[in-house]
Amino acid sequence: MKHTLEETLLSAIRTIPDYPKPGIQFRDITTLLGNARAFRRAVDELVHPWAGSKIDKIAGIEARGFILGGAIAHQLSAGFIPIRKKGKLPHETVRVAYSLEYGLDEMEMHKDAVSAGEKVILVDDLIATGGTAEGAVKLISQMGGEIVAACFVIDLPDLGGRAKLEALGVDVRTLIAFEGD
Amino acid sequence: MKHTLEETLLSAIRTIPDYPKPGIQFRDITTLLGNARAFRRAVDELVHPWAGSKIDKIAGIEARGFILGGAIAHQLSAGFIPIRKKGKLPHETVRVAYSLEYGLDEMEMHKDAVSAGEKVILVDDLIATGGTAEGAVKLISQMGGEIVAACFVIDLPDLGGRAKLEALGVDVRTLIAFEGD
Repeated sequence: MKHTLEETLLSAIRTIPDYPKPGIQFRDITTLLGNARAFRRAVDELVHPWAGSKIDKIAGIEARGFILGGAIAHQLSAGFIPIRKKGKLPHETVRVAYSLEYGLDEMEMHKDAVSAGEKVILVDDLIATGGTAEGAVKLISQMGGEIVAACFVIDLPDLGGRAKLEALGVDVRTLIAFEGD
Repeated sequence: MKHTLEETLLSAIRTIPDYPKPGIQFRDITTLLGNARAFRRAVDELVHPWAGSKIDKIAGIEARGFILGGAIAHQLSAGFIPIRKKGKLPHETVRVAYSLEYGLDEMEMHKDAVSAGEKVILVDDLIATGGTAEGAVKLISQMGGEIVAACFVIDLPDLGGRAKLEALGVDVRTLIAFEGD
């Protein structure tokens, strides 16, 4: 029985063919989240570079980024910032349009969620084209937050998201990759 | 400067009058989540009765229950189950209709998210009428899961949710209450 990080995580992810449309191999992370050991390892591995560092906020992208981001915020004793689809946040927001793998949408963050100079780590489950992550980076930067890193469990490198964020100067951390997606 | 749990949490919550409609005092938990100390205390306080216990899964209700539930699952080394609005989960689901404070909706859980006999703690940010929590309890019970407890940061006792869950035999844990809502 092998226990490398990559084996643990890859074996815990379910691939659903032709979802949400023909030709897409959907990487379903719910089976990883439901596996206590895989979930624990993913969070611990994403977080360890910042053990002992002062991180002010973890920004999680709705909805799966909330699950990982909540765990990471608690582990690093940071606050949590929800980045949500438009119309979901009750107070004054900043809004950005973004392109995502399967369409177009807008997302929002509370204006007072991040203060100038705060150190922020962005979290989501997966980076594909990087449209949502790029939008989130814009929202945080617009309010003066400093993006320390962007963390994802899964990278789909063929879709270019990591390269897009790195071109913006963002330090990108991912745990496993599916190539050819 | 006082640091009781109740003072820390109450002072971190923002109340938005007349949201989402006139007459509703909306209890905005995003300011608590964004406050590192309040978020840390809320998670730690919700979790401590089960330190050292074997809890198999934490079920979080979309979307704010994902943030607290992710942190609690990691802290207890449990798996995480997302309970989502209909049409969001990619694999085979069980579905339940439920009434919520401001309308009606349906929610789903993956059929294989919980196995018979697994010990599950349900998590959400707030319990009002208890409609969503009751629906989640039904989904978990239907698949044979044992509800160890249901945890919420905020109780609105006048809306009867806690009493509704307790009438189903569920152990309910909440940290602060707003009466007269």
